[in-house]
Amino acid sequence: MSSDVAPRDPIGVGLIGFGTIGTGVAKVLQRNAAVIEKRLGSPLRLVRIADLDTETDRGVEIGDIHFDSDARGLIADPRVDIVIELIGGYDAALKLSLEAIDAGKHVVTANKALLALHGKAIFDAATRKGVDVAFEASVGGGIPILRSLREGLVANRIQSLVGIMNGTTNYVLTEMEKTGEAFEVVLKRAQELGYAEADPTFDIEGIDAAHKLAILTAMAYGAEITFKEIPTEGISGVHPLDFEAAREFGYRIKLLGIAKAHGDDADRIEVRVHPTMVPADSLLANVDGAMNAVEVVGDAVGRTLYYGAGAGALPTASAVVADLVEIAREIQRSTSGRVAPLSYLPDALEPKPLVPLGEIVGPCFLRFTAVDRPGVLAQITGVLGEHEISIESVFQRGPHGSQGSVPILVRTRSASEAAVRSALESIDRLETVTAKTRLIRIEEGL
Amino acid sequence: MSSDVAPRDPIGVGLIGFGTIGTGVAKVLQRNAAVIEKRLGSPLRLVRIADLDTETDRGVEIGDIHFDSDARGLIADPRVDIVIELIGGYDAALKLSLEAIDAGKHVVTANKALLALHGKAIFDAATRKGVDVAFEASVGGGIPILRSLREGLVANRIQSLVGIMNGTTNYVLTEMEKTGEAFEVVLKRAQELGYAEADPTFDIEGIDAAHKLAILTAMAYGAEITFKEIPTEGISGVHPLDFEAAREFGYRIKLLGIAKAHGDDADRIEVRVHPTMVPADSLLANVDGAMNAVEVVGDAVGRTLYYGAGAGALPTASAVVADLVEIAREIQRSTSGRVAPLSYLPDALEPKPLVPLGEIVGPCFLRFTAVDRPGVLAQITGVLGEHEISIESVFQRGPHGSQGSVPILVRTRSASEAAVRSALESIDRLETVTAKTRLIRIEEGL
Repeated sequence: MSSDVAPRDPIGVGLIGFGTIGTGVAKVLQRNAAVIEKRLGSPLRLVRIADLDTETDRGVEIGDIHFDSDARGLIADPRVDIVIELIGGYDAALKLSLEAIDAGKHVVTANKALLALHGKAIFDAATRKGVDVAFEASVGGGIPILRSLREGLVANRIQSLVGIMNGTTNYVLTEMEKTGEAFEVVLKRAQELGYAEADPTFDIEGIDAAHKLAILTAMAYGAEITFKEIPTEGISGVHPLDFEAAREFGYRIKLLGIAKAHGDDADRIEVRVHPTMVPADSLLANVDGAMNAVEVVGDAVGRTLYYGAGAGALPTASAVVADLVEIAREIQRSTSGRVAPLSYLPDALEPKPLVPLGEIVGPCFLRFTAVDRPGVLAQITGVLGEHEISIESVFQRGPHGSQGSVPILVRTRSASEAAVRSALESIDRLETVTAKTRLIRIEEGL
Repeated sequence: MSSDVAPRDPIGVGLIGFGTIGTGVAKVLQRNAAVIEKRLGSPLRLVRIADLDTETDRGVEIGDIHFDSDARGLIADPRVDIVIELIGGYDAALKLSLEAIDAGKHVVTANKALLALHGKAIFDAATRKGVDVAFEASVGGGIPILRSLREGLVANRIQSLVGIMNGTTNYVLTEMEKTGEAFEVVLKRAQELGYAEADPTFDIEGIDAAHKLAILTAMAYGAEITFKEIPTEGISGVHPLDFEAAREFGYRIKLLGIAKAHGDDADRIEVRVHPTMVPADSLLANVDGAMNAVEVVGDAVGRTLYYGAGAGALPTASAVVADLVEIAREIQRSTSGRVAPLSYLPDALEPKPLVPLGEIVGPCFLRFTAVDRPGVLAQITGVLGEHEISIESVFQRGPHGSQGSVPILVRTRSASEAAVRSALESIDRLETVTAKTRLIRIEEGL
């Protein structure tokens, strides 16, 4: 037993990428050094930083930290035990991560895009080399959701995993709901305030959420899955009217990443990212602004939920440093690979058939735009009936927009996506229907 | 590097105490054996069970599990690597746990009472012997809250930790609020439904919550603290009128365990368990029924929250089996003591001065009972003013009770507990005040 390993040598950390999050990591390592050492037993020492910009003052005491633009030199530096990759993007990040692994260094990253695309290559290389790759910061910012899935819930068959995984879109939706303003107006303000990037596509179109959902789904189900397989719809189509309708029906609108097991052993899995109406009194409905939350239901544990800041320098740094400490504990004991990065051992990962979107069953919210004339409602509900779609409630509103069209708001009972899509195709061809019908899925039982 | 350790021998588990939770553990180990092995790499095998009652059919397939009443034999059995202690209580549980440690066996327990009283003795013995003691199930049922504190939030100075830590009291409060019924009526029903025990004192008086808060406080602050030091007030004094008042002021009433750091380095800590008014739109306010949730605020991560079932056979089993897997990973690598049981290394634990209750500052809800006569309100608010207690709002109600007394509901601004207590002493001596004034603290900013 090696519980009384005495050495407690400092563990050397090298940071590649000294931007917002990198700066947060340096700050947390410095200001919380004492408390971290009381828990870990070894000092965790930032010995080297590499960034192309060596001029800007980040408000971090550099002291005797070796700081230049030489990432390769950092990787090769024998004082560096763990390399933090925070440069983002794909190519350079992949190259440097693989080089670090090849040099026998452990790697910590917050780069979900990298993992979503090249996770397998990176994990395989790490396993071969006997080093660890940790990435808690890539999903849910500072929330210890990956750890909870891998370790806290290890005894469970995961039944579902549903969450708000992107802070920017949650901020925009929260503001739209609060102010009644249009998507474009709120997005512009979010950009001015720094809540959304200059090119917000990744966030707004749900791609970032899909990256994160791919990682979570792999962990929950041992599924080999890439984010490209995940049906993804962003929030740019959400209309102020939809929030009014949601309120009317007792819901709020959130961009959710959803993964569900079909069959006791998750023989097939259902994955998707889209704006969703959730019951107004559910915990997820009350996650506002840039916050994130993930609800995980396990067959033994039942319903659990994890909430916190999904982004930001310090919350993300909290997760990065947690990974450093976890790896440091391995270094203290000369071990590695304690827990498989994707929770399932590499040889237990397998491609899982995805449930086709058309087979997904649940209630829907439909917003029809039709001419304001008697008989139109009957016409629309008639088509729904032909497709065996039952209606739970209907609200019809006064004229809206320039052509004298009216919105008709419908909440259906449970119906398959295929039936709904097929009905909408017919309905949208009606000449009384003046705009494409808006469909927002409803997620009950949260 | 020992990442490619191949053996993957089965890891032997012995279960002492085959009651509700023990049965849950056996069921989870059996039905989820395949998925656990895919994550752990080794089979986790229940090889032996000890319980005084060997007759009752628990609905578990015993097969070739050695099942008798011989706990000592179980501990000595060389096939048993990890002993699960689920007999509850103090003396026998302590004795068996120490014997198991002494025999070189790792121990998993759900016994918060045992840990709250004898944690130090048990952890010290385990450290000396180089074995692990794990107890995730002792706090928050299946919620991986201890892991999150110890590992996910390891980079943080914890600023506060506030939670609903007892399912029975949360169930009773939720029902009282919903039905308007008296405490005794709801408690009786909770007992009939199995949500409360025949002798509910431990839960109702807040002692169970104090046990859990003692463990969480030790972990959050490295504080040597016993539950006896925690000022504790249960829910038996909560009156139906208090829920009405809470609604009026925009709050809900929850029994909270609260720990807060005073000073950046938590030089002093504030701990207490009592019924609390929390803002109705906060996440904690919306944790209903027997569910638990803990909010942890760290200096880096900000606000995080962990939610799930606080009790029940399967949720608790989920946590017990997570501990088994964690220890099994150590056995696979012939290591132990990876993470200190109380998060801080034993020699970093220290007694921390507690903030005296009188110094605690915050708004309060006060329910006065006074004769229905002009001038009484002025008299009461006058005394509050003399003690420098500002009033934010007052509601006066119609007559209630048999003596023609009226309730006067007051929400104060922030005031010290000492000032409030001193004011109440004077007020309760007024002859116009006909019953002891009820004080419920308000916790803002959740």
